[in-house]
Amino acid sequence: MRTEIRFAGSGGQGLITAGVILAEAVGLHDGKYVVQTQSYGPEARGGASKAEVVIDDRPIRYPKAQRLDVLLAMTQEGCDRYYHDLKPEGVLILDADLVPTAPTSAALAVPITRMVREALGRELFANIAALGVLAGATGIVGMEALTAAVLARVPKGTEQKNRDALNLGFEAGRSAAASPADEPEHDEV
Amino acid sequence: MRTEIRFAGSGGQGLITAGVILAEAVGLHDGKYVVQTQSYGPEARGGASKAEVVIDDRPIRYPKAQRLDVLLAMTQEGCDRYYHDLKPEGVLILDADLVPTAPTSAALAVPITRMVREALGRELFANIAALGVLAGATGIVGMEALTAAVLARVPKGTEQKNRDALNLGFEAGRSAAASPADEPEHDEV
Repeated sequence: MRTEIRFAGSGGQGLITAGVILAEAVGLHDGKYVVQTQSYGPEARGGASKAEVVIDDRPIRYPKAQRLDVLLAMTQEGCDRYYHDLKPEGVLILDADLVPTAPTSAALAVPITRMVREALGRELFANIAALGVLAGATGIVGMEALTAAVLARVPKGTEQKNRDALNLGFEAGRSAAASPADEPEHDEV
Repeated sequence: MRTEIRFAGSGGQGLITAGVILAEAVGLHDGKYVVQTQSYGPEARGGASKAEVVIDDRPIRYPKAQRLDVLLAMTQEGCDRYYHDLKPEGVLILDADLVPTAPTSAALAVPITRMVREALGRELFANIAALGVLAGATGIVGMEALTAAVLARVPKGTEQKNRDALNLGFEAGRSAAASPADEPEHDEV
């Protein structure tokens, strides 16, 4: 019933905004209980950033994520630091370029930031594309709720680019989940 | 050592952004441990919004606010719902117009939203002014750290108005704390 998601990366990648938007999508539009948290300590002052979202059908007593269902890492450091918090059956989503060394071949590696830069001309929307990847790869949040939450929070005038980034991420996430990197190749007959 | 702050109001007042900015000010610039949380449940779907910030000199094991040092309420409902969580010696900051019925004469009632509308032409910056009021009334966060955190997070082009709102709030908060509503009048000699 309880689902724990962590976004890990560096300050400026917009992962706290991504956490807030995911929480609003699930809490306000999908009708679940959600707690969204960011923590700051000595490690954050080095530029690291993380945001957590805990989702449940029932009120949430303990809001910290401890055994992750999803880790979405946008830096190598974020991946390395938190990979051990992922459940064995958890989903690891990586920015393929920013996390060159995946700790497992089962990771869903999507070139999130590059994809956004190439399609939309700016990396600014990579956090929104990351939410799309999460939705496409895991189904944890519906695209209707997610779109509503994105549009409610992004600056006026940026709605279409954010919508494009979200959809781009969704398709990429769906593709990555349908053909994970460690799926055996078919032998030719 | 532990300080618990809750912002309570309605969606659209920007209180989650205020919570994130306060946490970044204290965590990234003032060098403390901070956890910042928002929770969503059935009550949030009615439009209520709350954001919590817990500050400590040591790592924070339990991130939920339970005995508030500060409650900053921007709606009557937010005040009524959470006033009982305030410590006896805690500080209650209210938007004077939006919370017409204060539960105690010791409340610091500042017309935050009106003040911003009159000075800056838009209510949009009331959440930033509220942070200024908090800083001016309590000293929990320094203005240098708070200004840096505000400027790092607000949209480009709005820096000056946000800075103005912050300073406006700071002065109002300082005045309110210096002359609380329940201070006995001096008898004329």
